[in-house]
Formats: sequence, C-alpha cells, structure tokens
Amino acid sequence: MATKKKAAKKTAVKKKKPVILIVNDDGITAPGIRNLVEAVRDLGKVVVVAPDKPQSGMGHAITIGHPLRLHKVDPFNGIEAYACTGTPVDCVKLAVDKVLHSKPDICISGINHGANHSINVIYSGTMSAAVEAAIENIPSAGFSLLDHSIDADFSGAKVYARKVVELMLSTKLEKHTVLNVNIPVLPASHIKGIKLCKQAYAKYEEDFIERTDPNGRHYYWLTGEFVNFDKSKDTDVWALNNGYVSVVPVQFDLTNYSLKEKLEKLW
Amino acid sequence: MATKKKAAKKTAVKKKKPVILIVNDDGITAPGIRNLVEAVRDLGKVVVVAPDKPQSGMGHAITIGHPLRLHKVDPFNGIEAYACTGTPVDCVKLAVDKVLHSKPDICISGINHGANHSINVIYSGTMSAAVEAAIENIPSAGFSLLDHSIDADFSGAKVYARKVVELMLSTKLEKHTVLNVNIPVLPASHIKGIKLCKQAYAKYEEDFIERTDPNGRHYYWLTGEFVNFDKSKDTDVWALNNGYVSVVPVQFDLTNYSLKEKLEKLW
Repeated sequence: MATKKKAAKKTAVKKKKPVILIVNDDGITAPGIRNLVEAVRDLGKVVVVAPDKPQSGMGHAITIGHPLRLHKVDPFNGIEAYACTGTPVDCVKLAVDKVLHSKPDICISGINHGANHSINVIYSGTMSAAVEAAIENIPSAGFSLLDHSIDADFSGAKVYARKVVELMLSTKLEKHTVLNVNIPVLPASHIKGIKLCKQAYAKYEEDFIERTDPNGRHYYWLTGEFVNFDKSKDTDVWALNNGYVSVVPVQFDLTNYSLKEKLEKLW
Repeated sequence: MATKKKAAKKTAVKKKKPVILIVNDDGITAPGIRNLVEAVRDLGKVVVVAPDKPQSGMGHAITIGHPLRLHKVDPFNGIEAYACTGTPVDCVKLAVDKVLHSKPDICISGINHGANHSINVIYSGTMSAAVEAAIENIPSAGFSLLDHSIDADFSGAKVYARKVVELMLSTKLEKHTVLNVNIPVLPASHIKGIKLCKQAYAKYEEDFIERTDPNGRHYYWLTGEFVNFDKSKDTDVWALNNGYVSVVPVQFDLTNYSLKEKLEKLW
C-alpha cells in the first residue's frame, strides 16, 4: 500500500509541468524571443524575463553601480513576462531571486538575431545568460539564427529549438549543462539534423573605421571581418556551413589545464 | 661573416625593448593601474589604453551600437597613455588597431581593486581584456588585489606583478596564454610565493535588496554572498587563503568535451 502511494506520488511529481525560464539579449520586443516562446509554450510553464532594450555584445556584464527595475508586460498572449532594465545576466539573476523565487527546470535564451558560433560565444549576451543559469545549477541552452535581420525567417529555428528543448526535458542533464545552439538559415526540411560540435577557433580581424565629428574630433566605429582559422570537420562553423544545427556544450571552468601543467614545470 | 652578421642582428633584435600594453577595468585614474605602470615601466616600452570611467563587472562586453573615442592623457609621468570611452575589451581592440598599429609583446591588465579568482573571472572586465588580447595572439595576464578600497596597499601586488611579467618576458609563451593572477593583501615579505592553480567552483548566492523609490515603484540592488563549494587544495581560493599569489592559466575554448562525448551517445 505504502509502495503504491509512493509510486502514485512519484507519477504525480513527474507529471508536474517543467518551469522554463526564457531570456534573450536582443530585448523583449525582438521577433527572436517571440518565436522561442511560441516554439515551446506548451512544453511547460513558461516565464519570460528579458531586457527592455537591445543588449547585444554585452557578454557576461552585470549591473553593480545602478539599481535594476522589472516591469510586468504582456507581449506573449498570456505568458508571464517582465522587461528588465539590466543586462541578460542580470535578467537571469533577478528571475531566480525575485520572479520565480526558485530555480526553473531549464533556462533557454534567444532566439538570437545573428550567429553565436565559434568565438562569438564569448561576446554574446544570449550565451552569457545561458552560462549564468548553469552557474546557478540550471541546465540551459542559447539559440541563435544565422540571420541578423529584424524580419528573419525563424521557421526552421523554431522547429529545432523545440527539438532541443524536448531533448533537454527528456534527458537527465548535468546541472551545469550549457548548450550553444546555432541554426542555419534554411527551411526545417532542408536542415540535415543536429550535430554536437566543438567551438571553432575563429576571430574577427578588427578594423575600426575612423571618422571626424562636426567639431573636428576623431571617433571610431568597430567593424571587422570574421575569419575562421579552424578547418576541422568537428567544429560548429563546419556543421553550419554544411546544413546542420550545431550544438556546442559549453563550460565555465576556464582553467587551461595543459598550460597549467607546462608552467608548473617551467616556473 | 654572414653568420656573424646574422648573430649580431639576432642580438640586436633580442635586445629590442618589448612592447607592453597596459589596460584595466577600474578606469585610467584608478590607483591600481598607476601601480601596475610603476611596477613594470622599466621592463619595456609601456603604452596604456584604459577606460575613461570605471567598467567593473563589464565582462566581455564590446561597444557595437556607438562610436568610440580615444583621448591622449598623461597621468603616468611620460608614459604614452589614452583614455577610451569604451569597455576594457574595446580598449584592447582599439590599442592594437589604432594606437600601436601592431601587436604588443604582452598585454597586462589591472591591478584590479578586488578579487578576480574563481567564478569572478567570468564577470571581470580586467580578465576579459586579458582574454581578448590572447584571442589576438598576444600573451596576457590580469592582476587583481584582494582589496576593493581606493586606498588599498599595492606594495605586495607590485612586487608580484613585476615577478610575473619578468617570468612572462623570459619564457617562450604560447600565443593564446592568459594568466589570471590574484594577490593576497599581505606585504611582499609575507607572501609565500606563486602557485599555479585551477579555478575554484564558487559562486554568489544572490539576494537582491528591494527598495521603493519616491514615486512608489520598486527597484533592486544586486548583492550576494560569495560561497566557495570547491574544497580542494589546488584551487585559486585555497592558494589565496594560504598566503600565495594564485596564477590560473585561462582558456577561451569553452567547449565542454566530456559532455560533448556523453551527449553524442545519448542524442
């Protein structure tokens, strides 16, 4: 009898809807986050806490010198949602402490307008929000579509974001799991599938454009050409160039163990 | 004869002063950067490009929506120096492209007012500037003193920052080398030495303080307690607690290879 009760209770617990926290870095009004909400809204109890303005390229910035605000909004047709005055990482911290008052089952970030493969993972607010969740023991994923435009076609991205979230919810994930998911600009039917990859070594060859303002003073615009130095076939850049969705598991222990060993012998 | 000439040329090249780029995140007027300049100014040709205002907690943020400016300043008694309107990472990018017009031999960042051990490496503008340099194939180090105060005693930190820079300049370093150097608040004579470490798994237990503004609206201040979950003796936190300068070699390939392998079998 006791065993039966336990079993029944276990089933009830299992059937509880997972709580899915959604964040992004393009801001709460971006089409990308609307598409992510639409893609997964029936998979759990969805709560959105996202920046009230674009926060691209903010990396893992946090707000320490100013207070933050949260504004309840309703852009997602009945989904609990808040616009936050802070960075993507602030959104995750505030969501856990002041909105959910507990940890969600997973945190998903995006869908970013533009690629976050290779070295972009380091500059990306989308990915930093996902990393922040994982530091907080919340398995997470960041989703990015390889199209910067405001009217990008998210149809393929929606299908694959949902697939990855279903995989995450049906797998017993390590608590520090972070997935960097990039999606090529293709209809879902043309995407070849999901490929687990390593981060390509690529970078931007910087070239600041120098201009002169009406007062005769110089200013500089950041620009640069993306160059991939990593020609191996197990990278995210290769997978995307070949029609796959790339998934790079990401870690936040930045220790370079092999260099540590070498320097221990030298110094 | 030809060989002699070559040898002479080699010696001449070897004797060329190394170019040392100095950046920070506390801003160009912070005592920490002044102490770093003083500690190493005779070891090479020093050039400073640092933010014109405090940029703590900016992580790897870059400025993409606004132009940047550089202002030539002279706070370091004859050392070439520029105040930059951007983030610490912007400073490195602009220094290479528009100030030095080439890559320096090394880039050093700091001395930060406050610890950047363990998980702090991810939020730190000081460390992100060093990582940015390494992405650009410039061996780098970030230095941090475990004291936030404006009138902190940098005497021990100066001695050890110089020691690490001397080690860097006398070692053939991998081009992607990044060192996260933290220094305890002790006189140099009480510091036990330098210890190569791994990054401790530690984090902040967040607790936003909620207040109400004069218009009756809520706002939140980020606060939190630092908790170290990693009790092993090879971490930076252990080394610092035991009177050592901690040096963690840092990498920017964030791929979690063991998780990649696991998920390849599962998905």
